[in-house]
Amino acid sequence: MANSKFEYVKDFEQPDALLPNTWIVVRIDGRGFHKLSDHYAFVKPNDRRALDLMNAAAVAVMKDLPDLCIAYGVSDEYSFVFHPTCQLFERRNAKLVTTIVSTFTAYYIHLWSTYFPSKPLQPPYLPSFDGRAVIYPSARILRDYMSWRQVDCHINNLYNTTFWTMVQQGDMSNTDAEQELKGTVSADKNEILFKRFGINYNNEEEIYKKGSVLYRQYELQQPSQEHEVGDEDESSISEPKQSRSQQDKLKKLRRKAQVVVDHVDIIRDEFWQRRPWILSGKPGKLPAADSNDTQATQ
Amino acid sequence: MANSKFEYVKDFEQPDALLPNTWIVVRIDGRGFHKLSDHYAFVKPNDRRALDLMNAAAVAVMKDLPDLCIAYGVSDEYSFVFHPTCQLFERRNAKLVTTIVSTFTAYYIHLWSTYFPSKPLQPPYLPSFDGRAVIYPSARILRDYMSWRQVDCHINNLYNTTFWTMVQQGDMSNTDAEQELKGTVSADKNEILFKRFGINYNNEEEIYKKGSVLYRQYELQQPSQEHEVGDEDESSISEPKQSRSQQDKLKKLRRKAQVVVDHVDIIRDEFWQRRPWILSGKPGKLPAADSNDTQATQ
Amino acid sequence: MANSKFEYVKDFEQPDALLPNTWIVVRIDGRGFHKLSDHYAFVKPNDRRALDLMNAAAVAVMKDLPDLCIAYGVSDEYSFVFHPTCQLFERRNAKLVTTIVSTFTAYYIHLWSTYFPSKPLQPPYLPSFDGRAVIYPSARILRDYMSWRQVDCHINNLYNTTFWTMVQQGDMSNTDAEQELKGTVSADKNEILFKRFGINYNNEEEIYKKGSVLYRQYELQQPSQEHEVGDEDESSISEPKQSRSQQDKLKKLRRKAQVVVDHVDIIRDEFWQRRPWILSGKPGKLPAADSNDTQATQ
Amino acid sequence: MANSKFEYVKDFEQPDALLPNTWIVVRIDGRGFHKLSDHYAFVKPNDRRALDLMNAAAVAVMKDLPDLCIAYGVSDEYSFVFHPTCQLFERRNAKLVTTIVSTFTAYYIHLWSTYFPSKPLQPPYLPSFDGRAVIYPSARILRDYMSWRQVDCHINNLYNTTFWTMVQQGDMSNTDAEQELKGTVSADKNEILFKRFGINYNNEEEIYKKGSVLYRQYELQQPSQEHEVGDEDESSISEPKQSRSQQDKLKKLRRKAQVVVDHVDIIRDEFWQRRPWILSGKPGKLPAADSNDTQATQ
Repeated sequence: MANSKFEYVKDFEQPDALLPNTWIVVRIDGRGFHKLSDHYAFVKPNDRRALDLMNAAAVAVMKDLPDLCIAYGVSDEYSFVFHPTCQLFERRNAKLVTTIVSTFTAYYIHLWSTYFPSKPLQPPYLPSFDGRAVIYPSARILRDYMSWRQVDCHINNLYNTTFWTMVQQGDMSNTDAEQELKGTVSADKNEILFKRFGINYNNEEEIYKKGSVLYRQYELQQPSQEHEVGDEDESSISEPKQSRSQQDKLKKLRRKAQVVVDHVDIIRDEFWQRRPWILSGKPGKLPAADSNDTQATQ
Repeated sequence: MANSKFEYVKDFEQPDALLPNTWIVVRIDGRGFHKLSDHYAFVKPNDRRALDLMNAAAVAVMKDLPDLCIAYGVSDEYSFVFHPTCQLFERRNAKLVTTIVSTFTAYYIHLWSTYFPSKPLQPPYLPSFDGRAVIYPSARILRDYMSWRQVDCHINNLYNTTFWTMVQQGDMSNTDAEQELKGTVSADKNEILFKRFGINYNNEEEIYKKGSVLYRQYELQQPSQEHEVGDEDESSISEPKQSRSQQDKLKKLRRKAQVVVDHVDIIRDEFWQRRPWILSGKPGKLPAADSNDTQATQ
Repeated sequence: MANSKFEYVKDFEQPDALLPNTWIVVRIDGRGFHKLSDHYAFVKPNDRRALDLMNAAAVAVMKDLPDLCIAYGVSDEYSFVFHPTCQLFERRNAKLVTTIVSTFTAYYIHLWSTYFPSKPLQPPYLPSFDGRAVIYPSARILRDYMSWRQVDCHINNLYNTTFWTMVQQGDMSNTDAEQELKGTVSADKNEILFKRFGINYNNEEEIYKKGSVLYRQYELQQPSQEHEVGDEDESSISEPKQSRSQQDKLKKLRRKAQVVVDHVDIIRDEFWQRRPWILSGKPGKLPAADSNDTQATQ
Repeated sequence: MANSKFEYVKDFEQPDALLPNTWIVVRIDGRGFHKLSDHYAFVKPNDRRALDLMNAAAVAVMKDLPDLCIAYGVSDEYSFVFHPTCQLFERRNAKLVTTIVSTFTAYYIHLWSTYFPSKPLQPPYLPSFDGRAVIYPSARILRDYMSWRQVDCHINNLYNTTFWTMVQQGDMSNTDAEQELKGTVSADKNEILFKRFGINYNNEEEIYKKGSVLYRQYELQQPSQEHEVGDEDESSISEPKQSRSQQDKLKKLRRKAQVVVDHVDIIRDEFWQRRPWILSGKPGKLPAADSNDTQATQ
């Protein structure tokens, strides 16, 4: 029995390779996490276990896909970034997105009991994630994307911290707190926290204020003024398409690096200047074993 | 701190809604399942526990997404079908695909220990799936797609059954078995099984020969000759776009139906004629509690 | 001097083949024809020479591309329809659209002096057209598209006829006429025309009321009730992809047929039932030389 | 008569906006120009009238669309380039491509009799063009695209010049000339021209060797070494999206500049360094009336 009679249906599959030499960002989001966080009674405004679980799943994704050069997570969302030179899966959109979504989900479910030992998962309340890929034509715009997410993290966390403090410590109803915060700016919220509750927002934990940034760790470099980071990487210009063997060699080097979880400013230049390998796509020098200055998560 | 400075990056998100009034098939595939099935020592040629786990995850997806009208699974792949009238997520490609991939993965990982109690999952050997959406413009072509998968199931299963019988019962090396089967047709393989090993392929289990088909169960109808099933559904013609309330009503009706797992021929007309609700997208009459003639799953 | 160093730029060309087995409609529109019709003093509300020129250019396009099965024109727009089985240019979107737009423009400019002998073209007032392709998954929807354009023709023509009659024969200002017509329905406009100006709209020329429909002429058939025209064409089902030689044979047959310009109702079934070759994509029987009952063009 | 019943067909129109902040190249090609050049007896290997006609049509397109920043033509093809900041037609692919194709065709047909006064156009031998848009993520790659076309121009022209000299002056058959040229490199062809026919290829006309480059003329600048042209343009970085009024202002400035036709090297940096407005998208200073050092074309 040959299958040729029906094989014409394959012609309906349409190509979806992403434009070459562009940054690929795959952002995933928790599906219905509002309901889910109620069901499993996540701590408000931030549940440290839930964030650590997100980060653990993201680290696993970074290790599974050495082509990823950086990732940034906040709340129930995570952005994974492929370098313009990435050729993984011939840059097929659906393949890249679903691989990340599925791997992330697998680790999130598998590791759940480690982070929530007393709250076993109860179907149909299983966490799941949707995702999409977006391409950005330059390092400058990629950095603006990352800044956008980190500013969003800050705005939401300041709001949530203030709101939940008013509710939890100020005994206000949700509606009253919401009403009072309507139209306020950052300074107003800072003042509410400080004057009414004696909370200095600056002292809140960095993971809540800055989100989590994941990357492979090499020796940090001194920031230089000569070279504006975020310019078009020249290496990618002269070698617009890497050979298979080059790619494999780079992949191996990347596997050797430790993936670290950091909670730092990624808006200013310094972060990128000290870690030039992220935007260049070229692995740096592996650090000596004791020289890490960030929290390591192997 | 306003986020407006960076928000322009949202302009890079490109729309990906799938063409209206077409069948949407989301097919997912296990990533690296060859290696995985070795690691967890799946039984060859078919591991019943692994197939049952696939089916259980697929049933959960069908329940989670009432818009799905049928699904078909074989080996480590599953195809999920949305009706042309489906408006879920405004038919956005990435959203539909990642939701299915993630939900499927979540259940597969969560239910693993039920089906493989003695083989706990061991990272980094976590099962994951990739997926893609393909659209088909008519019911006829959708049926040809389904036939294509079932014919593929048959071809592969006959080959695998013969190969592994030669290896396991005939004490042949993998290479020798492969060599002997090269160029053989179905009749040859049937003969090898029967003459050398006394195995009548027709008596093999239906789940292995036919794969698994999932759908919502309503009262079966008598096949009629008047109406060629697979013609353009006329209802979808006169109502090319359903209202939101219509959609919600249909969704509720579909949630009430039981999702069944069947192992039957879906190439011939009979299957579709007796279950007109699959191609029409209109829920049938719920069957009396004792009238199921197929294996029910929850 | 080899060109290999720069050839990588070809990788940025992205595939744009249109989904197989769908109807392709290429609609073109005059660019800035409002201004243009003022410059060349087109007669209001309808300039017969301008419409005849549009039709002549469209007939040339139909002859140049035998794959086209029908076209419909109104005002400064034209819709050209390819059958689902069409394989021209491997169904590449840009290639199909630009070929039609360019061929149409070429004939429109070349034939201008035939239809406007006393008004030579004056750059930069050269007529040009933009266009786009849209695909439709079924004959029913394709017919609804055609109906949409013809209803639009009617609505606009009734409005324009009334408006310009009020201005030209009723000595009203444009603003006053526009004001009075605001919110009126068809019956109101018919009454204005009849009561004030003694004009029975039904007696207006068919080309203005119905637009122009172009197709290849074969022997008309008796409308039958058995077969609902607009159903999925069964031939395209059993032969989802025609061989190259089949396509060439059909192309030759189509070249032999005369392209006619008709001004008839294409909303009701009759038009399609009497000309089954349009939706089937299968050439009919060439009519005897004297049997034409429609206006023939070359 | 309302049109609402059929208006749902508009939902099938799919968005096709091109990725923001990327270079858009629309390349058009003559359809069947081999046959056409035979029919109208174009001079071989280069017909100056035909090239001048191509250039005249391209200049008209540049004037019609001030958003275009450069164009390059060779033989029967032309590439038109929009800057990354271009917002014309909301960057809709089909709209941009068809507008260029149609405008170019209109001028080509209209101006034909000026360049070929003794050879009136004879339908169905009307020239037409197809086209497509390709996007490039950086100025470096855009320049590589332009270089690719100019290298192609050189390779083809050297081949054609040698081939036709062998045929026309050397009395060789087409087949013999083709046979002898098979496998030759540039040096071989230069030698054939020089030794057999006394032709120094370097003395051939620049328009044939370099093709034609079109741009708006401003005061040339001294090339500087500090600033590598082709780097990511910083202006586009800080203003990723221009306001409507900014765009209109720039459009007006561009309309004032003369479009010139040049036949120069566009592969080396010098061309781009002396004309920084092309890659920056920012109009330069209009030159004094007598300072043009290139051939001006109104």
